[in-house]
Formats: sequence, C-alpha cells, structure tokens
Amino acid sequence: MVNARLSSPSRDIVETRTLAVRGMIVSSRPDALAGEEPMEIRAAGPGQDPVSVAVTMRTPGHDEDLAAGFLLTEGLVHQGDIARFELGDPGAIARPENVVTVRLTHAFDPGQLAARNFAATASCGICGKASLDAVETRCERLPGGPLVARSTIVGLPPALRDAQAAFDATGGLHAAGLFEVSGRLIAVREDVGRHNALDKLVGTMLQAGRLPLRDSVLLVSGRVSFEIVQKAAMAGIAITCAVSAPTDLAVDAADRLGMTLVGFLRGDSFNVYAHPERIELEV
Amino acid sequence: MVNARLSSPSRDIVETRTLAVRGMIVSSRPDALAGEEPMEIRAAGPGQDPVSVAVTMRTPGHDEDLAAGFLLTEGLVHQGDIARFELGDPGAIARPENVVTVRLTHAFDPGQLAARNFAATASCGICGKASLDAVETRCERLPGGPLVARSTIVGLPPALRDAQAAFDATGGLHAAGLFEVSGRLIAVREDVGRHNALDKLVGTMLQAGRLPLRDSVLLVSGRVSFEIVQKAAMAGIAITCAVSAPTDLAVDAADRLGMTLVGFLRGDSFNVYAHPERIELEV
Repeated sequence: MVNARLSSPSRDIVETRTLAVRGMIVSSRPDALAGEEPMEIRAAGPGQDPVSVAVTMRTPGHDEDLAAGFLLTEGLVHQGDIARFELGDPGAIARPENVVTVRLTHAFDPGQLAARNFAATASCGICGKASLDAVETRCERLPGGPLVARSTIVGLPPALRDAQAAFDATGGLHAAGLFEVSGRLIAVREDVGRHNALDKLVGTMLQAGRLPLRDSVLLVSGRVSFEIVQKAAMAGIAITCAVSAPTDLAVDAADRLGMTLVGFLRGDSFNVYAHPERIELEV
Repeated sequence: MVNARLSSPSRDIVETRTLAVRGMIVSSRPDALAGEEPMEIRAAGPGQDPVSVAVTMRTPGHDEDLAAGFLLTEGLVHQGDIARFELGDPGAIARPENVVTVRLTHAFDPGQLAARNFAATASCGICGKASLDAVETRCERLPGGPLVARSTIVGLPPALRDAQAAFDATGGLHAAGLFEVSGRLIAVREDVGRHNALDKLVGTMLQAGRLPLRDSVLLVSGRVSFEIVQKAAMAGIAITCAVSAPTDLAVDAADRLGMTLVGFLRGDSFNVYAHPERIELEV
C-alpha cells in the first residue's frame, strides 16, 4: 500500500499496488496513480527577495509553465515580463523542487497580492476579489472571431483523448487541450487540478510568445467553473469547450466577456451556453 | 443566454436556455445549471470583530453547514465551539448573503490563520502548511474499526445517486454521502466543489453533535485528493470510498492516518488503496 515513487523527474505517474475486488474475486495487482504534490509559486523582480504568491496542489511536471500560466491568468504578469525561473528553496519545504520562483524583468509589487486579499489556489481564482464585478475590470471583453465549424467542435474530445497519455494510465488527471480552428492539436497539459491543467497550457504558450491565444479553441476534460472562464479569457481564448457541465456563473462570465462556451460535448452533440455566433452550424 | 436566477433561497439550481446541437439538429431548449457563487467565511469570538478566514466558490445552500464544516476540517474549531451564525455584511460584497460569520463560544485567535500562511480554499486544504508532515500533527491517527461488508460497499453508489436530486437536474454537482456501516444513508450534500460538498456534510453532522463520525462510511462522487482524505480524517471518518481515482498523495495520507481508502467503486468492483482490514471481503 506504500507508493514507490518513480525516479522520473516529472513524477506525474506513481506506481503502486492495489487490492482489486471484482465481484467475489480479490487480487493484488499493480496500479498507477496520478501524482499530487504541493507547489509554491513565488515572484520577484531583479534583486528582490521572492514573495510567496500561492501554494497549489499539482501533478509534478511542467512546473515552470504552471507558475508562468498561473501568474498570467491571475493578472499578475503579462507576456514579456518573465526573465527566468529559479527552482527550489532548501529548508523551506520538504521537497525543494516544489518551490518555483518567477524572476521578472521589472520590480514585483507585493501590494498586488494584498489587493487580492486571499491567495488564489488551485480551485479558487476568485479569492480576494471583493465582488464578481472585478472579473470585468481584469479581463477585457474578447473581440469577435474566430469562426469554428461544428465538425471541428465534435472532433475535439477524441483528439484530446488520443493525446492524453497519463489519463489512460491513472484515470485521475484532468486535461486542457488547445486546438487550431482547423481542429489540429497545438498542445495538451494534464494535472489533478482542472485549473492547473489550464494554467500549464497557458504558461506553455506564454513561454512560446504566443499570447493572446486569439485563433484557437480550448477543450477541458471536466466541468467549467467561473475560474476556468476567467483564466481562459485572460489568455485571450474566445472559444471554450468542455466535456461536462458549466456552472451558472461560468455561463454569466462567458456571456459578459464575449466568450463562446460549449458544454456536454460528447459524440456528435453539444450545448452552446454563450455566444454561438463563432460556431458555423450549417456545415 | 442570460440566466434567470430562481428566487429560491438556496439558488442551487439555476434555470437557463441552451442551444442544443444534436448532430445536424439545432434547437433552443430549457436547461438547468449548477449554481456557483463566492462565499466568505469569517470567524469571531464573543464581542470580537469578525476575521476573514477564506473565500470559496460554492453552490448556495447549506451555507452555515459549509462554514462550520470548513472551520472544523481545517482544524480551526472543534465540536462545541460554535455559538451561532451571522449572515451577511451589507456593503462588503455584492450579495450580502454570501458572507457567513461563525460566532464562537470563546475568543478566536487570528494567529491561527497566520500560521496557515495562505487561506485555504475550495481545493487547497494544504495551503499554508509548510510541509506535508503538518497533516500528521493536525490529524490524529484513526483508531481501528468499524467493519463494513463488501456488499455494503458496492451498494453505496446507487444509494448516493438516488439521493442526489440536484445532480440529476444539472449534471454539474459533486456529492458527498455519509452512510451507516449497514449501508443506510445518513446524509448527502452537493456542491460544485468536491471539498465543499464534504465540508457541508461534516458541518451538518457537527451541528447535530454527531462528531467524531466513527461508525460511518463516506462516499464521494469524484476523485480523492489529499485534502479529501485530510478533511475526512479531521471528522473522524475511517472509511472513505470514491467513484473515481485517488491521487498518490491521498493514498499516502490514508495509509499514514489509518484510513481505509476505496477507489473506482463501480458496479460490483472496487480497488482498496489503504487499510483493507476494515472490509469484510468473505461475505
């Protein structure tokens, strides 16, 4: 029952043994679990002492992307602000690799964090905002376009599943995939936390200098909460699709921010909850 | 596409209209969404000014239970500490009903929060803990027992589904159900956040004076993260079952805390990841 952690530096999958009960048959068999460890995200300007911004429970791997994406989708940095990453802080935490400092090209104002009032974490992008209206002051309304065909939309889930290697092994990871409007997969990232998967994806594109992500389509494997819409909007994503249900606040936010929101995308069916004008239905 | 919020005080389900695409057939139809709104949890002793403890995105309803359960599972209060609840704070937030103050029978020490370093939120019970070792200092190892039959375990998911009214309407809510070892349902709570559903359940039992929840079995509808195990342990739950996968850290925590952890509970099958000694397999 004790996990043997892989020596793999990404530690995204952990091998274990489980007692498998199948009807009246009981056997011990090997199993794979999704890795989960805390990661502290810090920010600092040149020569500044790092300031702790958040601790999130994440699946190890793509840690710099996660840190960069989190800071961007929370409105704390913009493209071009990041100079480099510093990993680790011996003594501060059991696993020093679980501390990532984002060194900026300019001074970091810790007052930004005080204004947030609470540290944002894996599932709480709203923490610190005094009211929901704050989302509209932080995110600009998305411009019109791009257009995407109905046939592209229904092709996204199979493409994401094909690319989602770790999910097949553990059954425990959320995925966020970015696609061109043609349906071609650009990148996919996985994590035990839905928000982390999206932050890793945005961070990857941020580091590639590809923001804002105007001409692309996002697919998330789970449900769509308010924070998913908020984070996607911060990255400039205008079309967000999900395999499962949106919340009412996610629909409200998408409506206000000008984002196309698709839910329950399964087989050849889906529901459009906001801004259907980007979807070409007559194909 | 604009939600018409129900005037129901619980606001857990919100009626809307969606554009339903079913193959080549497109129609506008009524739909129901899971409600999601921020809630601020505050704590105060007699005569003290309330201190903000956390903001969580939750499905409205059972708000006092959520506040009480959160404070208990995060180790900030114990059974008997709560004198009453105060709802609202006009001017502080758009919807004053989204602020719940827990008034304690004794002074509340805000230093407890500083020690946590970060506000814990819906998906981040670990925030503020300097290392994973903290979980063992906050949670006592669970004692032996109770015993539960294999047949009881496999009967939990259908019983939870029968009781999960809101899920049927929206497809977007997580559920946490508490059962006697006989399989009889004690209580079920739902929320857009997995952790909130468990906190609401624990808070309900706390208010009924039923903690610790020694002779009961927990079933959660989704995955099992570290925080779910931690929160269950704080409530004294010794048997935790889930429909989906646990993370490696959840398994580690269950192993260390002496908790029986069951995952992938579907049909007549399940996996036991920690402490199988509480399950009577030869039935």
